[in-house]
Amino acid sequence: MILWNDRIVKREEVQIDIEDRGYQFGDGVYEVIRVYHGKPFQLDEHLERLERSLNEIRLALPYPMEDFKHLLQQLLDKDPVTDGIIYLQVTRGNALRSHAFPSEAKSVVTAYTREMPRPTKSLAEGIGAHLTNDIRWLRCDIKSLNLLGNVLAKQEALDNDCGEALFHRGDIVTEGSSSNVFIKKDGAWLTHPANHLILNGITRRFVMRLMADLEMPVKEEAFKIADLLNADEVIITSTTQEVMPVVSIDGEPVGNGEVGEWTRSLQNAFERHIS
Amino acid sequence: MILWNDRIVKREEVQIDIEDRGYQFGDGVYEVIRVYHGKPFQLDEHLERLERSLNEIRLALPYPMEDFKHLLQQLLDKDPVTDGIIYLQVTRGNALRSHAFPSEAKSVVTAYTREMPRPTKSLAEGIGAHLTNDIRWLRCDIKSLNLLGNVLAKQEALDNDCGEALFHRGDIVTEGSSSNVFIKKDGAWLTHPANHLILNGITRRFVMRLMADLEMPVKEEAFKIADLLNADEVIITSTTQEVMPVVSIDGEPVGNGEVGEWTRSLQNAFERHIS
Repeated sequence: MILWNDRIVKREEVQIDIEDRGYQFGDGVYEVIRVYHGKPFQLDEHLERLERSLNEIRLALPYPMEDFKHLLQQLLDKDPVTDGIIYLQVTRGNALRSHAFPSEAKSVVTAYTREMPRPTKSLAEGIGAHLTNDIRWLRCDIKSLNLLGNVLAKQEALDNDCGEALFHRGDIVTEGSSSNVFIKKDGAWLTHPANHLILNGITRRFVMRLMADLEMPVKEEAFKIADLLNADEVIITSTTQEVMPVVSIDGEPVGNGEVGEWTRSLQNAFERHIS
Repeated sequence: MILWNDRIVKREEVQIDIEDRGYQFGDGVYEVIRVYHGKPFQLDEHLERLERSLNEIRLALPYPMEDFKHLLQQLLDKDPVTDGIIYLQVTRGNALRSHAFPSEAKSVVTAYTREMPRPTKSLAEGIGAHLTNDIRWLRCDIKSLNLLGNVLAKQEALDNDCGEALFHRGDIVTEGSSSNVFIKKDGAWLTHPANHLILNGITRRFVMRLMADLEMPVKEEAFKIADLLNADEVIITSTTQEVMPVVSIDGEPVGNGEVGEWTRSLQNAFERHIS
């Protein structure tokens, strides 16, 4: 079932117009919300960020956020998942193609649920990451549908037998193609500040609170490629990847190439919160 | 009528899937082809550029380019326009949402024609332009569906009572939000080199040939904001805007604020080619 604007309908009943601005301009924003044991995780945080993304591109939901929240719950009731996700997006709607905002278009909402098991094997063993040049636009803080740069980077990572691409802009490591990145170095976690160069991940923020609980120092401070390559531990965080250890970078081991101690503690703390 | 993959169907018969990668990632490329007197203008040039864009993002048409060309002609026969456009786009098709390229998806083509009268009033009088920071990604040479940066800039221009936004990256003027830009200074036209920072416009190239015919010197050379503001004449070029005079920039007149002599000569030469 698909939430299509304010109705929950069968997938084949949804009609996306060829001039939906999402389809022709990527003119819209989205969220991916994790579901654990049938319940949305960090739902309010995701909807707050959605609101921010909408505001930044001057787009409005076709109804109040509170109604949207109810509709998402109805969707989850009709199409329940145990461990899965809710994907949702909002576009600027249908209008004669022209770059400027249309005067009359009504935003188009689509959302659906999907089973998605936790990546337990990768969480246990870690993944390899691939460094690539960050050529994306300068508003990565907006969770927009303009994802071609992310798509190409992710594919490049897979082509290099890695699970994630890590972006660097000049010498500075920004984030992953669909994740944030933290390194442990000199007894503290470092991660890029939440400015226009990265998406301020919901899991990023959640994990920073776990770090505080565990009394692990964490600093929002830009770090360099050399710092990444010499880090004791590296993790990426995302809604679907949770606290994912990075054990090698372009084939070179991180630390001793094993999942580190602080990473394990964070994973354990994360598990406790979602059990 | 809509060309949908290899069929020409009624608009309501087209089924765009919610997981069309064009809709969720902007993962696709497009072209806008001008039609004058019922005939496509610079068709081969547009299809060559399409081929390049497709290659750059490792996407393939679902059939040979020659077949596509025939299908576009059939579309124009079925849905003729006098002065108008053919809009076409190709996306990476439908697949379970995941950043990496899907292994099985088949590209989705949509195309349609539309009447669009020439902007004769603006061509006669010129338009105002608005300077804005170029925050787009670093592959502007690919005509991709990731157009949010262009959309926001165009809207900002309109909000400032201007017809086009001109991007600058640092001190350097790159191009317009949906056009290329030329300035006349010291007896020569200047325009940004066709590298990764601009789209190499079909009209840009056509106009450069007209300049050569008219023995107007033209250099592909980056120029600065100060050069733009002190230019004798400024034009933008695009498929739908042709040779459009820019007579003011953020309210300040270009030259004496009138359409310049070289601009008129170019417009006249352009007219002769499309009559």
